[in-house]
Amino acid sequence: MQSDRAKVITETARRLLRRGATPHLRKILDKTHAADLGVVFRHLPPGDRKVLFGLLDDPAKKGTILSDLDDDALLALLEEVPVADIVGILDRMPTDDVADLIGRLPEDLSREILKKMPRKGSLEIEGLLRYDDETAGGIMVPDFVAVRAETTAREAIESLQKEHINVEMPFYLYVVDENGRLVGVSSLRQLVVVPSDTPIRNFMNTDVVSVRADMDQEEVARIVARYDILAVPVVDESNRLVGIVTVDDVIDIIREEATEDILKMAGVGDEFVETQSVANSTRIRLPWLFASCMGGVFAFFIIGVFENTLEKFTYLAAFIPVIMGMGGNVGTQSSTIVVRGLAMGRFQVRDLWRVIGKEVAVGVILGCFYGLVVGSVAHFNYGGWALGLSVSLAVLSSMSLAAFVGSMFPMLFARFNIDPAVATGPFVTTSIDILSVFLYFQIATFLLRL
Amino acid sequence: MQSDRAKVITETARRLLRRGATPHLRKILDKTHAADLGVVFRHLPPGDRKVLFGLLDDPAKKGTILSDLDDDALLALLEEVPVADIVGILDRMPTDDVADLIGRLPEDLSREILKKMPRKGSLEIEGLLRYDDETAGGIMVPDFVAVRAETTAREAIESLQKEHINVEMPFYLYVVDENGRLVGVSSLRQLVVVPSDTPIRNFMNTDVVSVRADMDQEEVARIVARYDILAVPVVDESNRLVGIVTVDDVIDIIREEATEDILKMAGVGDEFVETQSVANSTRIRLPWLFASCMGGVFAFFIIGVFENTLEKFTYLAAFIPVIMGMGGNVGTQSSTIVVRGLAMGRFQVRDLWRVIGKEVAVGVILGCFYGLVVGSVAHFNYGGWALGLSVSLAVLSSMSLAAFVGSMFPMLFARFNIDPAVATGPFVTTSIDILSVFLYFQIATFLLRL
Repeated sequence: MQSDRAKVITETARRLLRRGATPHLRKILDKTHAADLGVVFRHLPPGDRKVLFGLLDDPAKKGTILSDLDDDALLALLEEVPVADIVGILDRMPTDDVADLIGRLPEDLSREILKKMPRKGSLEIEGLLRYDDETAGGIMVPDFVAVRAETTAREAIESLQKEHINVEMPFYLYVVDENGRLVGVSSLRQLVVVPSDTPIRNFMNTDVVSVRADMDQEEVARIVARYDILAVPVVDESNRLVGIVTVDDVIDIIREEATEDILKMAGVGDEFVETQSVANSTRIRLPWLFASCMGGVFAFFIIGVFENTLEKFTYLAAFIPVIMGMGGNVGTQSSTIVVRGLAMGRFQVRDLWRVIGKEVAVGVILGCFYGLVVGSVAHFNYGGWALGLSVSLAVLSSMSLAAFVGSMFPMLFARFNIDPAVATGPFVTTSIDILSVFLYFQIATFLLRL
Repeated sequence: MQSDRAKVITETARRLLRRGATPHLRKILDKTHAADLGVVFRHLPPGDRKVLFGLLDDPAKKGTILSDLDDDALLALLEEVPVADIVGILDRMPTDDVADLIGRLPEDLSREILKKMPRKGSLEIEGLLRYDDETAGGIMVPDFVAVRAETTAREAIESLQKEHINVEMPFYLYVVDENGRLVGVSSLRQLVVVPSDTPIRNFMNTDVVSVRADMDQEEVARIVARYDILAVPVVDESNRLVGIVTVDDVIDIIREEATEDILKMAGVGDEFVETQSVANSTRIRLPWLFASCMGGVFAFFIIGVFENTLEKFTYLAAFIPVIMGMGGNVGTQSSTIVVRGLAMGRFQVRDLWRVIGKEVAVGVILGCFYGLVVGSVAHFNYGGWALGLSVSLAVLSSMSLAAFVGSMFPMLFARFNIDPAVATGPFVTTSIDILSVFLYFQIATFLLRL
């Protein structure tokens, strides 16, 4: 429904742009939510984007739109915007989004912008840029409300009214000691509920869930999700409060990471870019298929080795699809369970053998069942126990091996800190294809010649 | 890191349980966060769970633990807990979690509980149970702060202090007219920042993002994510405010839906149950593989039809793996893009032909490229233009068809309101396997006999 709204606005905007109906366009831009404008801008051609961006007055809306654009579109749009105007827009954006945006710009442009920014802001941004993009430090905002334990509720509310108007989401109030070390947390809600002269010490919660600045963002997201909190404080190695990660960023991380995993497992890159052209999409997908192609060519040479067997028993070829298919599907099941289990924190890398053991057990049971089914089909259609047994054993070994390979690769990748999602898809499937075909012909050659 | 902590606690708890060290156990239970206890309980054997649950004093912690357990574990644990105690625990849980929990219990137990609950609570719960589980109504809480537009900031804060102590997350203040219809929204933060005698009318935001009670929970999650809000108000068909959906529930939905999609696509059920035994896991995965097995058997009969061709040109068999593999992988790519794109709201069902058209275009280009590669291998290894051409065309048609089938099935399923994630995996792969093999032998039979 909401996407429909953006679509209607996009179409209206394009029509009005063609007619040059500027006042009407301004009115629409004014009334539309920044998040919807983000979608509208992603759907417009570059030329229209520039015109519409020029018509926008609200720098906050401009900021949201810039954050939502792809890299190429962003650079094209900013080309003609004076640096002073960019600085004006950035001034109205949350600090973490500013750091993100600046990190995506070319070196010389970002340096120029940082030079023209107010000193405090540019120091903060440079501080944030120091952290790795995908860590707590990279996604935190340095704006938080921190007070000392002896502050009363009234004083805290007053300081909130005076100083912290620009704080992104001041729902928690952090309590620090004289060295800036995090010692407690309270909430805006508690502040208005307790008698106003109560010191925070008396009602603050000292069991604070916090994260280290170098913690991976996926882990941060898991913690926020597990403890149902709206923001998690970020501390440095001496437990000094350096920022907070807010729940809206956590939602984006969870969505992105899930999409990334899914796309990687299918071998279609790691970013879902809506505006991707056919050419772009082809370029990203072509190399992933190469592994599978090489695997297929390899399988072809393996079958070549067994040419004599195949010439004598042509019908062996008829079972290649089912043996490959069953192995491939079990392998996909196993690797999916492992990749998603790791991502959801359901098990750890050190559970390696327990996880693989369970998968192989499942693979063997499934292999026995389907080996019997497919073997019976072979036996009753060609009336040979040797063929039936060969096919049964091939299905069994292919499925067991697939469960092993499908669970082992992602676990091993994770152990060596390589993204396990990359390990599945083409990689697992290809090795299973080769192994299945080889084992099948090996077994059949042996049994049929007895 | 956090999971490690739960693991350490689990091991300590089991050791202390064996030694019967009750006072020590109580102390640990006291100090551990409810969310961590949830993980600990999931890892304990049923007997230990009962003992530990009996040692817990805090009903709020008990509530979190119950919410986190699987259905079987939940029922086993509640067996020996008196209904009055269950009511006491439910009293400390957020209303939406209570409704969830009661919905999972057997009819007679839930009726008994509702009877013993305070009248207001049971009416609210029954109200929530009316809505479908996976809609805004099913996940909302009926506790929200609603005031009239003429209320001043001070009055609003006072009413908050008096009445709304139990409200789950009172970060927004909703403004309603005399009929309870939603007209505006303000935040706790604005209340403390404006002069205290300002009526809310003067600073409330009238452009409220809201959702209908019957909206699907995935759509609700997308809206909360898009607008970066902490809670979204839920309204009935006359725009009357009936509840709110909070961001912590949205996070759970996003995680669950992503996991569900991934697992469904791989054909391993739709729930990631950590405690699933080998037997359970096998039971869930076995039927999914049946489609693939039937497909394989079907492919076997197709190849049987072409037995004459195969006997004359045995080497044709050697290319079955690469043709099937390439088709299967492109099909997986296409269906993944479509399923995830629909889930992320990147495109709609009515974009059917645009999406399929783009996928097929990509499939054809990739097919030409890999057709040439694999065809060359065939040509140079067997020195025949007819074989080379057959293999090339087979790869091309298999990959193009795979892109078509892989994108069309999920789009069609979505159009008929069937979950598109179910459509991919075994279903798409199997049809591609059959089509690929058939086309390959059809083309080869025609060309090689020329």
